Amino acid sequence: MSRLRETACFIVLEGADGSGKSTQVTRLVERLRGSGRTVVETFEPGATALGSRIRAIVLDGPDESVGAASPAAITEALLMAADRAQHVAEVVRPALSRGDWVVSDRFVPSSLIYQGVARGLGVDAVAEVSAWATDGLEPDLIIVLDVADAVADTRRSQSDRLEREGNEFHAAVRAAYRDLARTRGWTVVDANTDAEVVADQVWSIVVEVAGV
Amino acid sequence: MSRLRETACFIVLEGADGSGKSTQVTRLVERLRGSGRTVVETFEPGATALGSRIRAIVLDGPDESVGAASPAAITEALLMAADRAQHVAEVVRPALSRGDWVVSDRFVPSSLIYQGVARGLGVDAVAEVSAWATDGLEPDLIIVLDVADAVADTRRSQSDRLEREGNEFHAAVRAAYRDLARTRGWTVVDANTDAEVVADQVWSIVVEVAGV
Repeated sequence: MSRLRETACFIVLEGADGSGKSTQVTRLVERLRGSGRTVVETFEPGATALGSRIRAIVLDGPDESVGAASPAAITEALLMAADRAQHVAEVVRPALSRGDWVVSDRFVPSSLIYQGVARGLGVDAVAEVSAWATDGLEPDLIIVLDVADAVADTRRSQSDRLEREGNEFHAAVRAAYRDLARTRGWTVVDANTDAEVVADQVWSIVVEVAGV
Repeated sequence: MSRLRETACFIVLEGADGSGKSTQVTRLVERLRGSGRTVVETFEPGATALGSRIRAIVLDGPDESVGAASPAAITEALLMAADRAQHVAEVVRPALSRGDWVVSDRFVPSSLIYQGVARGLGVDAVAEVSAWATDGLEPDLIIVLDVADAVADTRRSQSDRLEREGNEFHAAVRAAYRDLARTRGWTVVDANTDAEVVADQVWSIVVEVAGV
């Protein structure tokens, strides 16, 4: 007998680029499947066919050959919200309705941090648009992987427009995750250590929150 | 001497598909230029390079070969808002700051009608997102071209996903334009007659609102 509830739990992993988030999503999903749960592993932005086109607009960078400008901060926030609305409608809600578990690499917290804090649009305004986009859907558990600046700057890839922002931008993102975690009840995990140790910590939090 | 003010006036032409809107935008811009004004002629959705990619996502219809779903109503509304945010930031505000006139084929009212009323998302919710997208920018004048259902159904093209909706959808759109015009202070022009007659009416309203 597992100590986990059987059905319909929505878990979000969050963290700055270089926090080891994708590794931990994979580990968690493996472990949940190993315990017999049906799990939908998903991510933002770009998990739906429509969303992958939105993701390209936000993250590719502008086509300077046609004189295109970068997205304005509000444009970026609204595109992220549009991607999320489609993700919730097409993937997350149907999965939870079937009784599946859902593990998502990023969700609303990423927008509060990247557009609300780092781009300066304000956390409350972005939270309001996000709540509209998700039609009020709230995860059962939000885990933030927290790493020291030096660790993250080594790990971070440079493959898209947001990842190529400078170290200062990314340090501000990490600080914002720590701040908002306190006020919004997100669970912070120290992700400076080995992936195995972090995975064990994540697992014990999941068992605590989704235990029966 | 013209009776029109010299600079920075933002005029929006609105109406259901088949209302003769594009013809009237062209006429109005010609007449304003003839009176010596510098005019930026623009439209929504898709006037910026980034916006043309958003427009394609909303209006092309889903790529069924990859199993793509249609945008959810909220996705559609957020994509329209993202297009508008970029349009305001990149085109409309810079033009008004230079002192130019701006004439736009569609703006916020289209979203209130198409997403707020016809898609059932609610006018107030869509108005709130729109106000965020435009950072509060309000047109000096909104003119709605109103045509009878039979006239519009003959004129309407079928070139995009929204235009291909049935006659009932479009009749509801026209009724919503009439209703909201009353409560929101939009000026309605009878567009069932000759384009020349309509152009004269539009011109006299512009002179009345933007006269000095």
